[in-house]
This record gives sequence, C-alpha cells and structure tokens, in this order.
Amino acid sequence: MKVDVIIKNADQLVTCASPDGPKRGLAMLDVGEIQNGALAIEEGDIVAVGNTGEIMSAYTAREELDASGKVVCPGFVDPHTHVVYAGDRIAEFEMRIRGQSYVEIMESGGGILSSMRATRAAPVGQLVAETRPRLDSMLALGTTTVEIKTGYGLDTRSELTMLQAIADLSVSHPLDLIATFLGAHSVPPEYAGQTEAYVDLVVEEMLPAVKTWSDKQPPHALGAPLFCDVFCEANVFSREQSKRVLQAGQMLGFPAKIHADEFENLGGVSLAVELGAISVDHLDVTPSHEVAQLAQSDTVGVVLPAVNFNLGSHHFADARALIDAGVALALSTDINPGSAPCPSMPLVMALACRYQHLLPAEALNASTINAAHALGVGHKVGSLEVGKQADLLIVDCNDYRHLAYQFGGNLVERVMKRSRFVKG
Amino acid sequence: MKVDVIIKNADQLVTCASPDGPKRGLAMLDVGEIQNGALAIEEGDIVAVGNTGEIMSAYTAREELDASGKVVCPGFVDPHTHVVYAGDRIAEFEMRIRGQSYVEIMESGGGILSSMRATRAAPVGQLVAETRPRLDSMLALGTTTVEIKTGYGLDTRSELTMLQAIADLSVSHPLDLIATFLGAHSVPPEYAGQTEAYVDLVVEEMLPAVKTWSDKQPPHALGAPLFCDVFCEANVFSREQSKRVLQAGQMLGFPAKIHADEFENLGGVSLAVELGAISVDHLDVTPSHEVAQLAQSDTVGVVLPAVNFNLGSHHFADARALIDAGVALALSTDINPGSAPCPSMPLVMALACRYQHLLPAEALNASTINAAHALGVGHKVGSLEVGKQADLLIVDCNDYRHLAYQFGGNLVERVMKRSRFVKG
Repeated sequence: MKVDVIIKNADQLVTCASPDGPKRGLAMLDVGEIQNGALAIEEGDIVAVGNTGEIMSAYTAREELDASGKVVCPGFVDPHTHVVYAGDRIAEFEMRIRGQSYVEIMESGGGILSSMRATRAAPVGQLVAETRPRLDSMLALGTTTVEIKTGYGLDTRSELTMLQAIADLSVSHPLDLIATFLGAHSVPPEYAGQTEAYVDLVVEEMLPAVKTWSDKQPPHALGAPLFCDVFCEANVFSREQSKRVLQAGQMLGFPAKIHADEFENLGGVSLAVELGAISVDHLDVTPSHEVAQLAQSDTVGVVLPAVNFNLGSHHFADARALIDAGVALALSTDINPGSAPCPSMPLVMALACRYQHLLPAEALNASTINAAHALGVGHKVGSLEVGKQADLLIVDCNDYRHLAYQFGGNLVERVMKRSRFVKG
Repeated sequence: MKVDVIIKNADQLVTCASPDGPKRGLAMLDVGEIQNGALAIEEGDIVAVGNTGEIMSAYTAREELDASGKVVCPGFVDPHTHVVYAGDRIAEFEMRIRGQSYVEIMESGGGILSSMRATRAAPVGQLVAETRPRLDSMLALGTTTVEIKTGYGLDTRSELTMLQAIADLSVSHPLDLIATFLGAHSVPPEYAGQTEAYVDLVVEEMLPAVKTWSDKQPPHALGAPLFCDVFCEANVFSREQSKRVLQAGQMLGFPAKIHADEFENLGGVSLAVELGAISVDHLDVTPSHEVAQLAQSDTVGVVLPAVNFNLGSHHFADARALIDAGVALALSTDINPGSAPCPSMPLVMALACRYQHLLPAEALNASTINAAHALGVGHKVGSLEVGKQADLLIVDCNDYRHLAYQFGGNLVERVMKRSRFVKG
C-alpha cells in the first residue's frame, strides 16, 4: 500500500499506546517500546506502527525518513497552562528570593492581579504577539498540544479577549490549542471582599457570554470542548463557590476542570469526582482518602512540579503515591508568569523523576497519553497508534529515558505535527 | 576609528565588568548594566563598550549589528565539568529513583567506575565524537569557555587519552576548553583497598607523564595552565592524600583545584586556602570557620547545584552565606553522566536563585566573571571589557534577569566567540 510518509529504523519507537483510556498503575511502566521501529502516515494520521521490517514489507511511501540512532515518541501534551498573558513578574521573583512574604508581594502589586492589570490593558493583538514566542519555545521542546486557560482578565470583556487570543493563535500557530475558561481564577480588585458577588458575575454574566462566544467558533480540530475551571483554594474560591461555577459551566456544556489542593485542602478532589471533572490539578496536599476517591474515578490527576520548583519549595505533590493508588496521572508545566515561567515538558519530566520518584516511563506516559486524556482528546493524540494524528518527535538519543535523565538542554531534534515538520 | 564589528542598540548590555579580580559581596549585585548599549570589536577583542550614542560617534564598523529588543551579556564560563566520557548511567538513574542505595548501585557496577570502564575502552576518536554534541549543547545554551577534567581513566594511559581528547576538541570545537588532570577522582578497582598505593601511582607516574604530555602541547589560547584536581572526600581521598597530590602537581607547575565538602567535611577548604588553590568546588557541607578562611583568600568557591538537583536532594550548598561572608563565588554545571547530566548554565542560575537564594545579578556574575577567575582567565574572558575577547551572547529578552527567571527553555539567540557567530 502506498502512503505519504514512512519513518523507519528508529532505534526505539515508543508508542505510549493505551487503547482503553488513560494508563494507571503498572501500565505506566510500559511505553510500548518497539526496537527498530517504523510507522506509516497517510493524510496526517498514523496508518501503521510496527518494526521496520513489517512496515516496509506492507507499505511504500512518497517520502521515507530514516530515524537511525534516534528515538521516535509521541509529541508532548501540556494539559494545564496559563501561557496567554501580558507583562512579566520579574520584580516579584526578586522579592521572593529576598524572602519577602506572599502578602508583601501582593501589597506591592504582585501576584495574579499584576498579570491581570497587564492583560486587561493589552488588546488581543498584543496578547497574541506576546504569547506566540512562548508557544514556539514549547513546540521546540516537543509539545504538540497545549491547553490554555483564561483568568487574567477577570471581567467579561477581558476574559473574552483572552479567549479570542487563544482562538487566533489556534488558527495561526501549528500547535493544537485547547481553551479553558477560568474566570474564577482570582477575585479582581473591584470585587475585593465580595467573593460571592464575583461568583455571581462569573455564573450569571461571564459564563453565558462565553457560551455565546463559543457557539460562534468553528469546531476544534481535536474535537475538544471548551472547559470551565476554578481555583478552589483557601482565600480564593471555597468548595461551594467552586461547585457553583463548575455546575453552571456544565449546564452550558463546558466540562469541568479544577485547581485543587495547591496550598490547602478544601475537598476539591472529592468535588471533582462528584462532578465528573475531566481533571483535577495540583494535588500538593491531597489527603489519602481523596486520593482513593480519585483513583476510583475517571478524573485524571494532573501534577505541576515546575511550580514547586519555581517557588524553591521542598514539598512536591506525592505523584508516586497517586500512581501507586491507581490514579491516572498526568504532568504539565503550568507555564505562567508568576509560579512557573517554564515552557519545557522534558524539564517537568526530569523534576518528576527526581522529586516525585517517577520512573522515566511513568513520566513519559504522564506527559503524552495521560495528558491527552486530561483534555478529553486521548482518542486523537498522545500516543502513536493507528488512527491517531501523526504528532511525533524525533529525539536525538537512542533510549527514551534520556528525555528525563538529561536536563536543561533539548534533545528534541524534529517535531512533526500531522505529518508536517514544524521543527527541524 | 574603523573597527570590524559594532553591536548596537541593545536594550541592556550587561558587562559584568570587574577590573580588579572576582566580584565579592555587594559587588555581586552589580552587573554593569548599560541601557541602549553598544560595543566595538576589532580582531576578536573588545575595543570599546558604552551606550550606543557614545560608541557610534567614535567608531565606524565594517559590520553593524542591531540588538534592539535584546540583552547582550558575556558568554558563560563553565568552570567545573566532566564532559569527556563514554557511555551513560541511565540504569543507575533508575536504580536511584527506585530508592536503591549508593552501595547497591556501586555493587551493581554503577558510579564513577562505570564511566571509567566505558572510558578506558574508548579510543580517543570515540571520546571526541561522543563529547562533541555535548559541547554543542553547552554552546547553544550560551557557554563559551569550559573547563574539562580527566578522571574516568584512572590509569596513566587512559588519563592521557582523556587529555588528548580534550586537546583534540580544543582545536576542532569553537569553545575554549581548559584541561584539568583529575587522576585522583576515584580509586580504580585494581587498587581497591590500596588508596595509598594509588596515590603513589598518581604522584610518581601519572603526574610526570602528564607533565611530559603537556610540555609538548601548544600554548593555550586563553593562556590557561593545566590544573591538577583531587576528590577530597570520605572513602575517596583523605585531606593528607589530597595534599600530597596537589603539592606534587604544583611542583610541576599545575595550579591546584579541589573537590571538597560534597558529602563530608574533611577540611578541604582549609587545604585549598593553605595551598593557594585557584578554586575549591562543591562546598555543600562547609563549616562556617572554613567559609571565613575562604572569604579571606584568593581561592574562588564554586558551587554545583545541578548535582543536588539531579540527586533529588533537598540540601544545597549555602551559596547565600558564602556570598554574604565575602567568598568570590562561581557557579558551574558539573556536567557528567552520573551526578549532573546537565549542559545548561542558565538552568544552574535558575537553581541557584531558587534553592540558594541568589539574586539574578549574583547568579550572572557567578556564571561569567567569577567563573573565569575560577580558571585563572578572568583577564581574558568572563566580562565585556576593553581588551577582552569578544565572547558574548545576544539574548532574546529585554532584561538579563529573564535568564534566571525563566527556566527549561533557551533564551540565547546568538553566541559570538571572538567576533565570529558560532550560534545564530
């Protein structure tokens, strides 16, 4: 059979295949390694995967690509980011190094509200222009699908502007972008002390406006819906307030995501399970009874160790315990200007192996197939399986474990997005 | 006056200038920032530095380069590496994640002796070929001068092979490489239990052979001598043994460097000061009285936080206390296959800011001018000053602090080595 492209002779082709949903438990140790691997691609999708002998005897291609001495693996999926924003937070970074407290930083104008002010002041074109090079960096490091949250607007107009920036980038950038509405990211200054009234605004004004906006958008390439997320945290949004926002989103057809247990446990994981959220993210202080609930559910747990690293913390989410309990675990950068100015999924894998005791195989599955399931697109991307998009990396090493073992550089030589090389 | 090259309009040009030796104390906070900066280059050396108005009124150039929107800073100097080796240590990496002990790893064939076996088996051409891409990665991340140690040979022939590999790479690679003899890196298996006899071999056979070898080499471009180093550590080489090796090296004209206080304090810092070593490296457990001695000396203290990170450790050298005490502090990757598979000085800066409480300015000075002094080449490289080599970076940001604030990506857009772009 004749196909568009064959990639052959990979020292290792790792599929991360998982036909029945995200990987859990011991399956996380299996990356579906094929020695001397090959795959065939037709119209942007994978039509065959196997060893080079098998593939070459069944297919001929208009273009053959030799991956001798290289690893071929799925492109990374980064399922939790705040990569659209204006400004930076360098002053805050220096204050933190000098030992100033969170409250002092907030009082001097830092924190999420600092990004909010810069983002509110930015027209959509500026947001697009400032974000594009960050997406380029992520792509250069091997990411092929990215979730992006709003939440630096915190008023209806500015939240819609952020959504529009994501939509514009989605059309003009080679990465697949998946949008999440996070109006409930923080309480803006005009609602200081009136959290409940701000929740009213999110539920009664923002969400309907987002629905109207989203109904006018063309369907997403990956078939992903718009998600609705909330920052369930002490001094931000309570469990009840979070529930109200997420249920209002679900009524409009926006599946739920939730930030839970970053600093204090408010029962966000049990809420995620109760609501059937697609993912629950952070999990730094989740108690074992909620870990057990999560393991029994279809909700993916997403951990974000670049945040702990960025804060110079010695505490990291116990991702080892999450996997051992049977949670479907994913990794993500959380790239944002305050708590994680980090575009790199490989560095997140390196962190997870060192401070969360994941083996390289577990870190890779958590950065590909499970991350795709954290976005509801595990049927389209996240693994090299027949019928999926040919989103893949050619990595300059002969063993996938180098991706997590080496750190600080970039082993990703070429990035293919639907059969087209977008890097290399 | 007519010159070869002018670089102009840099949003920030940071010189890291320090005419009187390495920076200490509050001087570490000064990176010599020039807004709208420029510099003029003739025959590979810097002939003028200033703001763009000044430089453009005094010089014309055969080639002008516009650095609008960019930072220009000195190339990084990486003063402590083991980047020449064969093989990898991925199996050991996985054993460590699984919680196996150092002894178990050693017994299964891991550790320095694992790299020794692979390196002994490698002819010089293989060492050169395996090392070259690592140097390429370092260069792509902004490093322009690199120290490289022997110490995976551990017999006279293999140590000389490593030196030859460094010499060969020095000729064929654009980076400036500075060699250090580290025969006393570990006790090889054939001397197990006979450390004193191995020290005899180092002193009586290896060092004279290294002297003979080095006398035949052309003078180094940067005027750097060959250094002699030793791993002064519990169960490796005692303080007395270390002293014997370093003094024997000094007798032959090899200035001393020393690995001290990585795991246990044996008084290596006081030995470094006593012998007038050019640097003392690691300093993870140095007691305050030795910190005070170091601060009073000309010896540069080098800390290596990528090692602590790689081991998933929560303990880091107290670099903040070292600076506050007045030590001339430098940073380095320690790139090696076991404890730091990391080519990136920017990631080391990011680590130092987060886990050692350095401000970005301190981290940058520690990675440039002070690192150059840790190699005795502070008069030639490490800062953008008149008379020095034009080794510089064009960084894709408008504030040098981004180099440490962002992490995991690579902001270094172009790398100039003596007026020639070797990246970008």
